[in-house]
Amino acid sequence: MPDGVGLVETRTAVVADPDHPFRLENGATLEKVEVAYETYGELNEDRSNAIFICHALSGDAHAAGLHQGADRPGWWDNIVGPGRPLDTDRFFVVCANVLGGCGGTTGPSSEDPATGSPYGLRFPLVQVRDLVEVHRALLAELGIDHLLAAVGGSLGGMQALQWAIDHPGELDGALVIAASAHLSAQNIAFSAVAREAIMSDPDFAHGDYYGTDGSPDRGLAIARMIGHITYLSEESMREKFGRRIQDSDAPRYGFDVDFEVESYLRYQGTSFVERFDANTYLYLGRTMDYFEPFADPTYVQHQIAEGDTAFLLVSFDSDWRFSTSHSRRVTDELRLAGAPVTFQEVESRHGHDSFLFEIPEYHETVAGFLDRLATERGIG
Amino acid sequence: MPDGVGLVETRTAVVADPDHPFRLENGATLEKVEVAYETYGELNEDRSNAIFICHALSGDAHAAGLHQGADRPGWWDNIVGPGRPLDTDRFFVVCANVLGGCGGTTGPSSEDPATGSPYGLRFPLVQVRDLVEVHRALLAELGIDHLLAAVGGSLGGMQALQWAIDHPGELDGALVIAASAHLSAQNIAFSAVAREAIMSDPDFAHGDYYGTDGSPDRGLAIARMIGHITYLSEESMREKFGRRIQDSDAPRYGFDVDFEVESYLRYQGTSFVERFDANTYLYLGRTMDYFEPFADPTYVQHQIAEGDTAFLLVSFDSDWRFSTSHSRRVTDELRLAGAPVTFQEVESRHGHDSFLFEIPEYHETVAGFLDRLATERGIG
Repeated sequence: MPDGVGLVETRTAVVADPDHPFRLENGATLEKVEVAYETYGELNEDRSNAIFICHALSGDAHAAGLHQGADRPGWWDNIVGPGRPLDTDRFFVVCANVLGGCGGTTGPSSEDPATGSPYGLRFPLVQVRDLVEVHRALLAELGIDHLLAAVGGSLGGMQALQWAIDHPGELDGALVIAASAHLSAQNIAFSAVAREAIMSDPDFAHGDYYGTDGSPDRGLAIARMIGHITYLSEESMREKFGRRIQDSDAPRYGFDVDFEVESYLRYQGTSFVERFDANTYLYLGRTMDYFEPFADPTYVQHQIAEGDTAFLLVSFDSDWRFSTSHSRRVTDELRLAGAPVTFQEVESRHGHDSFLFEIPEYHETVAGFLDRLATERGIG
Repeated sequence: MPDGVGLVETRTAVVADPDHPFRLENGATLEKVEVAYETYGELNEDRSNAIFICHALSGDAHAAGLHQGADRPGWWDNIVGPGRPLDTDRFFVVCANVLGGCGGTTGPSSEDPATGSPYGLRFPLVQVRDLVEVHRALLAELGIDHLLAAVGGSLGGMQALQWAIDHPGELDGALVIAASAHLSAQNIAFSAVAREAIMSDPDFAHGDYYGTDGSPDRGLAIARMIGHITYLSEESMREKFGRRIQDSDAPRYGFDVDFEVESYLRYQGTSFVERFDANTYLYLGRTMDYFEPFADPTYVQHQIAEGDTAFLLVSFDSDWRFSTSHSRRVTDELRLAGAPVTFQEVESRHGHDSFLFEIPEYHETVAGFLDRLATERGIG
């Protein structure tokens, strides 16, 4: 693999202020919205080579490259860089933390200008559409009004999908990876248990734990552990851990961590707590629960007819969180509305997390799709 | 369906006392063991018609019939009674709460004779083998030293399997339903999260919450909610709940219970807390994690050769907790050891919970297997 994008830093843009408040889908307004973002590569003269990365529930603006002093690159570094599918020799790539996030973009941990205290649960409920509108406001700040593509996995794919539907003609392509347009009862059930774990933690304090001694770390860790089980496939768990005992040949027979898989999950839970805000977890989880972009088929049909966005849907055969049937349903709905859709199920044992892995078939599919879009736009 | 077994009551037997302590597999001893049990039907003169029901994690001794004043029958009433597969016109059926339980049998909530206080986490870790030995001690009290069959689903099936392996010649048949001889990494992961939820609840108090103001209700409810998701199939959840909103046509957009599936799960969690002890949940969950009856193949082979127990293995095609592959592995191991095994995968959309449902193919399979055993024994 060639070297990546090198040193990068996260910047912040202000996209709403008291004179230009941001109005959400549900009618609420925010008097200040800051957005944390990163860019990789160069915008060409026509401003025609921009690709926007939409991140998933626990992601952030740092998709690629290295921060000063860091030893690990951004979360999607394997797909972004010179010669990689999101080729920074060719494309100008933007990634931003979502509205409601905790990675520098305004969210429940931000100060509510009306009170001078953090919003907590007074932050308005955000919908996928709101996330997209904030990204669009950022692009307007950057002088970009058209994208070669919006691309994302999981909640990121939901954003790419909503973007394409709401703004015909704005995207040449939408890459919707390991996503869904319609959480299943089982998906919502897992989300509900995670939420219950956070909200029933006594340190949650109805969301007002900022600046107090406590924070709902136990609840958030449990939510993350549950999430992790659904991100991995049964097969990959078996391969990775089996029934092996941590640091021992024989079981210790007790209630402490004993099996390797327990140790792994506990680490995932406790390390997540250090970098993530429980309220953001609640908000973005709920955003996914309520996502239903095809609720009004007439609207979708009308919108699709207005534009000519090409869609790439990718699913992974071992993903049981958003299985292939989810991507198939999106494909069917889009085709019914008249959109051109390429659908690819990729073989992978990594479950839902596959979209983060460097899987040749997957990366070639993404690279090929983007190359086609770029060629059509005359991007060299 | 004909009427069931009618009014029943739970009785208690003492199977260990200071003069005859109970010795566990791990070497610990219990100076007092009480067992709660129920019986249905009549023991015949030869004492050859007894069937023992082993219950699952959240079960108890009350498998069938009605308690005085109750409006709901025991948890397996549809399979036990006159004319039902466990035909009480023909068989003497016994069900007992397991060691470590909270339904009348000695467990972590019982008084430790050494201290006069409840055991809490000072109760010894129990293995499936210990559960079986306590059941056998109960049967000895009842004057029964041979069973037509031991039968159980999930943890109950594990007990039937261990019983057959450890005591050749004691069972004519072992009915191992929706069970496993080897929890997968994913199974252990779910178990670990449930345990984490209970043990990280501040009211858990290291297991010594008895007689205090609090008890780890939040943690136990979350554990139960997680469990419930794994007991149902994705398909049955979709059929039962879909994305329907509770008592409303339109979403309320908030963090409270909104979708029907959330309401269902919350009810399952909160109602469970009223009838179940968190420490028992921990103990029996861990018992399942560590279960590995085929760890010593030489032992199993020797034991199987000593007896002539016939095995019936049943799995359900939508069960993703203990999928058909779990039952197939048990079948393979038993056949390798030379045991006669009938294996049947039953079509059902109810997931792991299928073993509790009245599914014709399933009930006919159980009835047919028991009838064959009874006929061979000359039971009319």
